[in-house]
Amino acid sequence: MKGTITIHHNSGKRQIELLRFIEEHLNGSVVSMEEDAGIIMKSVDVVSTDSFTIYPLFFPGGDIGKLAVTGSVNDVVMLGAEPIYMTLSIILEEGFPLDSFEKVISSIDSELRGNNLKVLCGDTKIMNKGSVDGLIINTTCFGKSVGKPLSVYNIEPGDAVIVTGPIGLHGATIMALRKGFEFNFHSDCRTLIPLLEIVKRFNVKAMRDATRGGVAQILNEIATSANCDIVINEDMLLIPEGVKTISEILGIDPLYLACEGTAVVFCDERDTGEALELLGDLGFYPSFIGHVREKGVIPRVLLKNRYGVERVLPMLVEELTPRIC
Amino acid sequence: MKGTITIHHNSGKRQIELLRFIEEHLNGSVVSMEEDAGIIMKSVDVVSTDSFTIYPLFFPGGDIGKLAVTGSVNDVVMLGAEPIYMTLSIILEEGFPLDSFEKVISSIDSELRGNNLKVLCGDTKIMNKGSVDGLIINTTCFGKSVGKPLSVYNIEPGDAVIVTGPIGLHGATIMALRKGFEFNFHSDCRTLIPLLEIVKRFNVKAMRDATRGGVAQILNEIATSANCDIVINEDMLLIPEGVKTISEILGIDPLYLACEGTAVVFCDERDTGEALELLGDLGFYPSFIGHVREKGVIPRVLLKNRYGVERVLPMLVEELTPRIC
Repeated sequence: MKGTITIHHNSGKRQIELLRFIEEHLNGSVVSMEEDAGIIMKSVDVVSTDSFTIYPLFFPGGDIGKLAVTGSVNDVVMLGAEPIYMTLSIILEEGFPLDSFEKVISSIDSELRGNNLKVLCGDTKIMNKGSVDGLIINTTCFGKSVGKPLSVYNIEPGDAVIVTGPIGLHGATIMALRKGFEFNFHSDCRTLIPLLEIVKRFNVKAMRDATRGGVAQILNEIATSANCDIVINEDMLLIPEGVKTISEILGIDPLYLACEGTAVVFCDERDTGEALELLGDLGFYPSFIGHVREKGVIPRVLLKNRYGVERVLPMLVEELTPRIC
Repeated sequence: MKGTITIHHNSGKRQIELLRFIEEHLNGSVVSMEEDAGIIMKSVDVVSTDSFTIYPLFFPGGDIGKLAVTGSVNDVVMLGAEPIYMTLSIILEEGFPLDSFEKVISSIDSELRGNNLKVLCGDTKIMNKGSVDGLIINTTCFGKSVGKPLSVYNIEPGDAVIVTGPIGLHGATIMALRKGFEFNFHSDCRTLIPLLEIVKRFNVKAMRDATRGGVAQILNEIATSANCDIVINEDMLLIPEGVKTISEILGIDPLYLACEGTAVVFCDERDTGEALELLGDLGFYPSFIGHVREKGVIPRVLLKNRYGVERVLPMLVEELTPRIC
């Protein structure tokens, strides 16, 4: 589609045209855009909201549209719930190319369909040129718990820590793209709905997707909330070679790079073997990376090397990559 | 509070500080910010989402924080549901003053408390200086229907059209403020929860708050959806003198100015008298402005003057005031 978003798409006739355009592209995945609110027909009990400000909007492995669906979906999955509905709020800069917008909406459509999700209601706002950089999307996702709700407060010393896939792919992709580096990997951006299978079958205590701040930051946040230490084995970490290279060039630790399709799972240690097997069958590349243990003076995350030496993986203090999601 | 938002508030330790700051200011109104998602404990069946990009952030009668609560709340009320929960997603520009942020959060807090609402989950994103103008807030509100769901599709010829309060105050306030005019009125920004009383007691078919595009645009959208004409009497419209003056100076029709606390209500004509009385008792300034009738060739909104002459109030084509909400 040719042309650009104009300020007149903010209200009146042109806004209705914009809403129709979105509705047509999300054909079958939208309940109704006629009213300002939507009706929930199926019972829901978990909700998550996220605003997506990623730059650049298009990247190997996805775009802001795909990410806006998978990001909120994954937060709902992390509490042990099956995503059912979504709201969609779009903020556009005057002058934004309509063909790029069409690509983003098509990505949203394909991700909604692939995951059997419906958009219940939406909103569009156009901001004057220079007031916002391109496009921001907010999604709120609601789901239904498949069992007891998961929570970091369920975590106990002795629990196993599993990472469901390769580490740092999304963050490394965005950083490499921004720096203009050549690279041969892509973002891991995907929904984690299949993880609900291990929630149904095993004693999973908590899950968290390793987005902003990566595995190291997420583990730190969980250690603090659960008031315990988390010890992980360096040798068990699955970090793609390309991610290692980019990290070395940029002088950063890949453990702090965002993932958008990899989660950290805490479960009863007795279930570890079977959970890993099922995860493999579901198409994940899981690794059993460590354990929860009683905290020392303060809750910490410790990285143990092959000689058994532990060093602290501190909480992130400086922002590595703004607009990573 | 002194200082500004930095890019480091986007993740890690500083983000946790920012989340704690928000949680403390919303003390008692936040379920939990520990997880990325929240648990819905009460049954809900209506949802609405809105992103607020208003400029300027502070205005007589409210600010972006108050508006972000009332805006989504009102969309849920318009479908005949009592708002219960809300999600809160905040996008900040690097360099945003913390004292202004504190004022906005305090407004949100006061509006949540005043309406007995809980924040279920939230999200914060910091964008680099220049990538977004100051502050954007997205809220998604969930509520429980108090009776049968309202819908513009319920509207029939013969139904009465009531406007619940003065017209154009929000739009006129923002326009006057931006132009640097002196004026002695303020935005009507408020929640419309008390309107649920007329929904419970009378045969209300549909309601819509007259935000972007004002009463004239909202009536046009409803006429199109309901496939009928709407005829309103010029003499019955309650337009404050200050709004008329500003509109004359700017050469715009006040019927297209946004309201943020005034709704259009469609109800069975037989209930009009009692509904108006109850609305008055509830603190509204309602006026019975017209009727729905069979459509002519295409659905239209007609404004009838005191001599019985009808003229078309067309759908808005050009945006009057971007960033009005």
